[in-house]
Amino acid sequence: MPPAQPGLTLRRVNIELVNTGSELMLGRVLNTHQQWLCRRLADLGYLVTRQVAVPDTAPAIQSAVREALDRANLVIVTGGLGPTSDDLTRDLIAQLLGKKLRLDEAVWHHIQRRFAARNLPMPKNNEVQALVPEGALVLANPNGTAPGLAMEVNEDKRWKMEDSKQTGSPSSILNPPSSRSNRWLIMLPGPPRELRPMFDDQVVPLLRREFPPAGPFVCHTLRTGGLAESLVQEKLGAPLSPLEARGLEVGYCARVGQVDVRLSARGAEAERVVHEAAAIVRQTFGAQIYGFDDEEIELVVVRLLTERRKTLALAESCTGGCIAHRVTNVPGASAVFLGGFVTYSNEAKQKFLGVRPETLAAHGAVSEAVAREMAEGARRGTGADYALAVTGIAGPAGGTQDKPVGTVFLALVGEAGTEVERRRNAYERETFKQLTAQQALEKLRRQLISP
Amino acid sequence: MPPAQPGLTLRRVNIELVNTGSELMLGRVLNTHQQWLCRRLADLGYLVTRQVAVPDTAPAIQSAVREALDRANLVIVTGGLGPTSDDLTRDLIAQLLGKKLRLDEAVWHHIQRRFAARNLPMPKNNEVQALVPEGALVLANPNGTAPGLAMEVNEDKRWKMEDSKQTGSPSSILNPPSSRSNRWLIMLPGPPRELRPMFDDQVVPLLRREFPPAGPFVCHTLRTGGLAESLVQEKLGAPLSPLEARGLEVGYCARVGQVDVRLSARGAEAERVVHEAAAIVRQTFGAQIYGFDDEEIELVVVRLLTERRKTLALAESCTGGCIAHRVTNVPGASAVFLGGFVTYSNEAKQKFLGVRPETLAAHGAVSEAVAREMAEGARRGTGADYALAVTGIAGPAGGTQDKPVGTVFLALVGEAGTEVERRRNAYERETFKQLTAQQALEKLRRQLISP
Repeated sequence: MPPAQPGLTLRRVNIELVNTGSELMLGRVLNTHQQWLCRRLADLGYLVTRQVAVPDTAPAIQSAVREALDRANLVIVTGGLGPTSDDLTRDLIAQLLGKKLRLDEAVWHHIQRRFAARNLPMPKNNEVQALVPEGALVLANPNGTAPGLAMEVNEDKRWKMEDSKQTGSPSSILNPPSSRSNRWLIMLPGPPRELRPMFDDQVVPLLRREFPPAGPFVCHTLRTGGLAESLVQEKLGAPLSPLEARGLEVGYCARVGQVDVRLSARGAEAERVVHEAAAIVRQTFGAQIYGFDDEEIELVVVRLLTERRKTLALAESCTGGCIAHRVTNVPGASAVFLGGFVTYSNEAKQKFLGVRPETLAAHGAVSEAVAREMAEGARRGTGADYALAVTGIAGPAGGTQDKPVGTVFLALVGEAGTEVERRRNAYERETFKQLTAQQALEKLRRQLISP
Repeated sequence: MPPAQPGLTLRRVNIELVNTGSELMLGRVLNTHQQWLCRRLADLGYLVTRQVAVPDTAPAIQSAVREALDRANLVIVTGGLGPTSDDLTRDLIAQLLGKKLRLDEAVWHHIQRRFAARNLPMPKNNEVQALVPEGALVLANPNGTAPGLAMEVNEDKRWKMEDSKQTGSPSSILNPPSSRSNRWLIMLPGPPRELRPMFDDQVVPLLRREFPPAGPFVCHTLRTGGLAESLVQEKLGAPLSPLEARGLEVGYCARVGQVDVRLSARGAEAERVVHEAAAIVRQTFGAQIYGFDDEEIELVVVRLLTERRKTLALAESCTGGCIAHRVTNVPGASAVFLGGFVTYSNEAKQKFLGVRPETLAAHGAVSEAVAREMAEGARRGTGADYALAVTGIAGPAGGTQDKPVGTVFLALVGEAGTEVERRRNAYERETFKQLTAQQALEKLRRQLISP
């Protein structure tokens, strides 16, 4: 990324995340909070400068939080607010900041009501979730028992550690946050369905109030399909560079079968700069841009089908249901998706899709002719407007010299006839399935937007 | 987790991970390295004590690596070894450690051969990937261009920072690693398909040589289905506690529809302690244990079907292909999985599964009777030994008073007849699909292991 404008860098808020949990350090769970919080904050114009994960032990949590508070204006701590013995965050942070814990009556009533509403007996250990450090704001938790907590931290804080030999770290002298007097510590519960609405509904307003953006911030992502990252960078580098001089930041992110172009800017010109940059990206890649911001290809396809009142059927061999699974992840898919067939065996291809035995015998199951008959059979059988079919070799076994592992035929049939294309997706099994699904959905999208 | 035995704690190796990448901090990609490396290391008997993610900037990378080296015996850095302008790790670490970079001829030939083998012109900027800090071991990369690097770090190292005002952090005085003279820094490339085999084939042997375990380490995970985490803990707490006194560590990890019980121990008694603990878990939960270590339920089901020479068909409504997708993620699934139907519409249920219009009219699509007819129709149509069917309300819309969002009917038909059960999986759409798929596969597994 190019450096931000110097005048704005000084006013930038330093945000650090501290994710607590021994399960994280044992690799038993994936840290999805990091991505979710970083993305939400980035799209609001705030950047996370460091993320740390530590186990559920007193020294690990306290030293991570203390170091983060020495560097950052805002520290967000996740996890460890539950009722069990390894939920230590609330206690340790109150101790670190020298705050007493008191029982919050409103929180306590909320917890009691939740148990009563479910006719469940309440274990005694739930009372600890109603303890609040003095001076902390309570972030209500409509989706669980443990509330979030937000605390303003005094500048002249003397750290109070579990281990009395440890003293304040001098790192604050090395990396002073931009405004020492304005520091916040926010604690959020671990379960994503509790953390996410609490962040959106309660943390974002606090953030906007306590750390108002230096000026407007605009961020827009354009998502391309079927292009290599190096090509996307090469084609956009020169045309975007005058806008980078005017404060545009450009980020590229490559994933399976797609490259995102993220455009952002700050300040009075932000809206215009991002708008002009987006126009250049659109002009450069045209129909290769499949969506914007958080839109996945399956969402775009379901929306296009819905708008055009068209229906879809699927016939999957090598993707094994992956395309149907992605399409049905979109709420409202039932209005446009009539049915899918997962036909691994030749018998199933014949019986349910009407693939002819002589086609299978002459060309093999992985062939242009079979892909075509699968798609046409799925459309005929369901009465859908469009049908997609895929047949290929996911591997690890099954490849031949003519058709190595990764070979796949994609067929699309619609009102205008049938198209088949051959691809080589030489990746391990799960990536192969996801990439093939992405290509198939992209093929349909192109058809749906063609005049 | 209970504390480890004191004698062993002292000999424990401190490992820290540093994940570099501005894309991580913008939340554009999920940090899967953390989970993968933590899990691999934990299963080898090593624990990661801290994980940090920082953006691709010189001060951020250098301060994170310097601080990690001050605390840890082994620091693993991921990302930033590629050929582009934001790949800074190699340079910054060489600078930090005061090492010159030299062109490694073997690496350079490897990179040239890779481009030649693909008939691709090689951009000049790829040469930087052949630069190696003096004294570093090269970790060959058969799956990409950038090699990994492993360096032993001297104890009396004076940090050389980008910013000359910064000096050595005194944190090493506060948290001395257990052995100051034995520190390693390992750099691995970012792409998972390059990092993972490099770690298994080259880093693990180095780790075993440089940081030999203090004694035997044994780790075994038993995976249960259909039980609440609190219940699993409650039932195992008392019977396992005598073994905890003998060094057993027990960890619980709850995910959608399943709870893992992780048993580990170190030292001469490790094998016996873990063996006895596993026997207790097995005795307590019996058939509710569906698999061991990394085994997913779909793997277990495909293996059981293969062993028994039985075949499977699927009829999915509300899961929309999720079960078929999971089953076909297992290599070799094609030998036992005959076909799947994704029948969202009533017409598709009638036409392809033979569900009777009068059944739909009398009971509705989400009903015990329709689930039964879907399963029986899928079995009849494909000739499979077993068929699973699911019909339910994934939401967010579509619920009624009698059948609220989350209601699902699971049907299994086999040689012994048809069984249907009703569940309430009140979660958002994607969790609903995964949980329902887990329950359906678990239902089949129980049938397959029943005498």
